[in-house]
Amino acid sequence: MRRPVDETHDPARTSWVASANGHRDFPVQNLPYGIFSPAGEAARAGVAIGDAILDLRACAAAGLLPATAREACRDDTLNVLMALATADRATLRQRLSTILSDPAMEGMAAPLLHDSAACAMHLPARIGDYTDFYVGIHHANNVGRQFRPDNPLLPNYKYVPIGYHGRASSVRVSGEPAVRPRGQRKPPEAGAPRFEATQRLDYELELGVWIGEGNALGTSIAIGDAERHIAGLSLFNDWSARDFQAWEYQPLGPFLAKNFHSTVSPWVVTTEALAPFRVAQPSRPEGDPAPLPYLWDADDQAHGALDLTLEVFLLTAAMRAAGAAPVRLSRGPATSMYWTLAQIVTHHASNGCNLNPGDLLGTGTISAATREGFGSLLELTTGGRDPVALPNGEQRGFLEDGDEIILRASADADGFVPIGFGECRAIILPAR
Amino acid sequence: MRRPVDETHDPARTSWVASANGHRDFPVQNLPYGIFSPAGEAARAGVAIGDAILDLRACAAAGLLPATAREACRDDTLNVLMALATADRATLRQRLSTILSDPAMEGMAAPLLHDSAACAMHLPARIGDYTDFYVGIHHANNVGRQFRPDNPLLPNYKYVPIGYHGRASSVRVSGEPAVRPRGQRKPPEAGAPRFEATQRLDYELELGVWIGEGNALGTSIAIGDAERHIAGLSLFNDWSARDFQAWEYQPLGPFLAKNFHSTVSPWVVTTEALAPFRVAQPSRPEGDPAPLPYLWDADDQAHGALDLTLEVFLLTAAMRAAGAAPVRLSRGPATSMYWTLAQIVTHHASNGCNLNPGDLLGTGTISAATREGFGSLLELTTGGRDPVALPNGEQRGFLEDGDEIILRASADADGFVPIGFGECRAIILPAR
Repeated sequence: MRRPVDETHDPARTSWVASANGHRDFPVQNLPYGIFSPAGEAARAGVAIGDAILDLRACAAAGLLPATAREACRDDTLNVLMALATADRATLRQRLSTILSDPAMEGMAAPLLHDSAACAMHLPARIGDYTDFYVGIHHANNVGRQFRPDNPLLPNYKYVPIGYHGRASSVRVSGEPAVRPRGQRKPPEAGAPRFEATQRLDYELELGVWIGEGNALGTSIAIGDAERHIAGLSLFNDWSARDFQAWEYQPLGPFLAKNFHSTVSPWVVTTEALAPFRVAQPSRPEGDPAPLPYLWDADDQAHGALDLTLEVFLLTAAMRAAGAAPVRLSRGPATSMYWTLAQIVTHHASNGCNLNPGDLLGTGTISAATREGFGSLLELTTGGRDPVALPNGEQRGFLEDGDEIILRASADADGFVPIGFGECRAIILPAR
Repeated sequence: MRRPVDETHDPARTSWVASANGHRDFPVQNLPYGIFSPAGEAARAGVAIGDAILDLRACAAAGLLPATAREACRDDTLNVLMALATADRATLRQRLSTILSDPAMEGMAAPLLHDSAACAMHLPARIGDYTDFYVGIHHANNVGRQFRPDNPLLPNYKYVPIGYHGRASSVRVSGEPAVRPRGQRKPPEAGAPRFEATQRLDYELELGVWIGEGNALGTSIAIGDAERHIAGLSLFNDWSARDFQAWEYQPLGPFLAKNFHSTVSPWVVTTEALAPFRVAQPSRPEGDPAPLPYLWDADDQAHGALDLTLEVFLLTAAMRAAGAAPVRLSRGPATSMYWTLAQIVTHHASNGCNLNPGDLLGTGTISAATREGFGSLLELTTGGRDPVALPNGEQRGFLEDGDEIILRASADADGFVPIGFGECRAIILPAR
């Protein structure tokens, strides 16, 4: 069920929107969907193109869109658009590619563009349920070693795509500040916990997976169909209070350590746009069990992985005051996921659990095998013991107030135009 | 912030709806809210009164309701009604009590009644997020002993009201069958897990807590205000596949073992209706730590508990075929909760997590100290090893296809008319 590469990926195709050509994130080969508001106006669906946004509601009203997508493009969330059938999604993408690349369309479509810098972005969808997975095997090993030194990777890890439910209500779009949470923490030397602001605030670099077409309660999703149920991807920062987490997480998992805020990037990069950047899922190490049959699909093994480069940047208050640029904390590939996106979708629905359009799945922290690609401070600083030295002389074990974390992702492949995800960013405000 | 006892609780008050007087669940002193459809008609809000339902949308249209509640009563979910301010909730309750008890109102209101037996019930609210707690200390001890024999109650239990996020999309109203889930199970003797139908399907007896007024992200709820944020209670069955749970739950908690289906009773028994049945929270055993200050409220200790009697019944396919009545599996008090409802609400929001009207909190399984009040088969049968003998000669370690579980709750106090919750029931269908 992989989406084909077609003329919308043609590297020779350029846009009459000049800023799109050579744009690091949003050339005409990308065409991600989002929900935006021009200054003082109502929220609506749009497509990012260079430094501009094409107003999909206005396109629908002007009769520019395929009939099958018209209603979906009039909504103020992407839930209905995400749920479109594969063929209708492809038709919409092809039309948008034509509108934004054919010079003959400029006269009609240019008035429907907005300057991105003057628009507010919103959550792409009403998130019914948000689930977080744990597919980054290096992360699982790194963290497991700190929480359970004798037992970093539990026996179920290589059979079960481990996941848990998170908080939908506190998922916020990029740009909204996160307030440092207060909660119970029990330092090892303390006899009893105290209720106070977290002292071990961390980010987690994840991909967010947006569910497209859903499944009815009591039915499952075959592995070969799973990709069809994915509308697209965003960047996702699963903010974590490590001190709360260590104290609260047994026996029922993370709760207040995670649910105070999560940040998602506003643009949904579609699985169609990502088609050229699919690569083989890395082979499992010798001795690892094969996935159980319900999770096994040869097609998935052939190109189940995503060849993305993921980066995390930090901008501290001192750096901001000095006009310095954000400093990169890590850079690594997205191929270090032990389970594919198809496998987490199929596993999630394997017991009959119903997924709905606009549901959000986090992959879990994606860390590379080596330190330069670790996706959290917990890993980069070995639980705070080896602080990161910043170019301005500051150092960080965990995050301080005024710190801003910026996630980025880009895709590049021979013979194709690189695309990106835009930014997923948020600043930490002091505890209230 | 306890709701006062007022004339709506007057035991001398009777209803002109004859079936309400002496009704085990829905006398005029109860007045729970729900969403119902008369045969073939649209969903709307109603109030249970005896064997009938008063149509709140029709009451609003007829000008019978207070202006402050009129819009809320026109909706097809209770989210807006749940969010009403305390004073407005009280005014609405008083008006409904008058409408249903004053003989002068019968002529106007009787045409707005529907026969409950001819109506379909729906979920009371759009559930934004569902969270499950673990406040039944006897349950925590009983289960902990089976999963971790050396370590039944973890060190955090008496400090942290343990909770985790569950699946909102698969919460279903009483009466909807639950399909036996398939999933990964690894019997102790097996070298690897298998994907197959659960062989250890269980129920969990819980109370469901409906959130009323919410809190904004980044703000918390003071313990003294917490009750004000609770709209009311229902019965809740947190169906559980114990074999899946044992294999998957580490390190991030229950997931597919629980999210295939949860059943909630359709009537929201308000905190106003429950006011006469509040009793002191049982003292903590000597040596237990006091709650941390953010969870400590003298008022809460004085009458933080609910004097409810909870019962679980089983009707097997063989019993159904023979025309036999359901057999009671357990009966116990709701006072064995280690944490109060106010404490779980305050804890949930203590890190700034935003709760919304219509969110659902499960208490976790409420088991009594002794076997006759154990709230799950896992506990009643000691993990299946001591099956329950049924009067017709059948026995049950865990649930079989065709079994139906029925939860009931009732409240009784000297000088007041007893009220009940109605039923929370669902039948198990074979795996697909």
